[in-house]
Amino acid sequence: MENISNIRYGALPSNSPYIKPFRMVYVQDGITKDADLLKVHDSVCIIIYNRTTKKLIFVRQFRPAVYYAAVRESGSETDDNVDATKYPPKLGITLELCAGIVDKDLPLKEIAREEMLEECGFNISSDRLEEVMTYRSGIDSTGAAQTMFYCEVTDDDRVAAGGGVDGEMIDVVELPIDEVENMVKPGAKNVSSPGFLLGVLWFLCNKKPQ
Amino acid sequence: MENISNIRYGALPSNSPYIKPFRMVYVQDGITKDADLLKVHDSVCIIIYNRTTKKLIFVRQFRPAVYYAAVRESGSETDDNVDATKYPPKLGITLELCAGIVDKDLPLKEIAREEMLEECGFNISSDRLEEVMTYRSGIDSTGAAQTMFYCEVTDDDRVAAGGGVDGEMIDVVELPIDEVENMVKPGAKNVSSPGFLLGVLWFLCNKKPQ
Repeated sequence: MENISNIRYGALPSNSPYIKPFRMVYVQDGITKDADLLKVHDSVCIIIYNRTTKKLIFVRQFRPAVYYAAVRESGSETDDNVDATKYPPKLGITLELCAGIVDKDLPLKEIAREEMLEECGFNISSDRLEEVMTYRSGIDSTGAAQTMFYCEVTDDDRVAAGGGVDGEMIDVVELPIDEVENMVKPGAKNVSSPGFLLGVLWFLCNKKPQ
Repeated sequence: MENISNIRYGALPSNSPYIKPFRMVYVQDGITKDADLLKVHDSVCIIIYNRTTKKLIFVRQFRPAVYYAAVRESGSETDDNVDATKYPPKLGITLELCAGIVDKDLPLKEIAREEMLEECGFNISSDRLEEVMTYRSGIDSTGAAQTMFYCEVTDDDRVAAGGGVDGEMIDVVELPIDEVENMVKPGAKNVSSPGFLLGVLWFLCNKKPQ
């Protein structure tokens, strides 16, 4: 996963499949305002707890956005090319909940079930998924809804190694609870999203075995 | 705040002050990949608890991105103009932590202190801010860091009404703890970000008065 090279930045092409920006104009209390937004899919994510190993199951991915931001913080904002030996790719590797976008006309639980199989290799029936909560990601620019689920699995539910489909490079990791607790301790610095930490803290407050 | 009209969508102008997209190209394990990203500022946010009223202090704002997403979910994706009587503006009003971007060369605690004054009207010294944790917002597209703080205030610390500066329209709201607990109950549907809910849950798990 960390074998990354030839990093360079350029202009956004007009046909980007990832980012579809547009402008919204409106009048609020008589004042004309505008906002530039992005059209993105809604998504689901799943907190997975393995009762056999007593560990939480997460995924790791190289995230270009996080790498870019970490490199910029190191003072290399203006470079078009980035030296991957000076700024190691692990700066951009995030720990995440198993997750996926809602790009099919299926119930959210079914989409979550598919992601658990594709990314993490666990084959469960969707009625084993417990809905945690729904919120709005990216309130500045996307407003997309994300629904969080919780699922307990055992080693018997594992039917494949996981790792994603269609060229995704995803590592599945299992972490013990004491390691996970460090992520939400005072002053913790996380290379993870607030949604990930919300899931971790929700587990610790509601599902942690006594 | 909800007096909103003349809503329309259009193309992103090339000089958008909000969204600065660009493409990153890289090679991972021999495969050339690309990602389209946005350059945004890092930010801070503050969980504020008022010991006098025993309430949490939040802000409410109209968020065009959330409004757009809510309207789209109602099936109106292709309209260039949106009927604000059919889709009430409150669909886009979010509950948030007091927050601000890091656009000055100041310590993060000082920026958080200024936001508490500008948005919520509380004047405190920055040594009263407790660092909660740091994470990466928008791991898909921005990777920007957000640092969360906690601060307890009393009514004596209030020196102004708050509401923001430079034409910001921000309502300050105080909510009792039992109302806040509903936001993280099973199946809760929130018009709020995961970072907001992380702050709420962190407060309930760590600071809620017994």
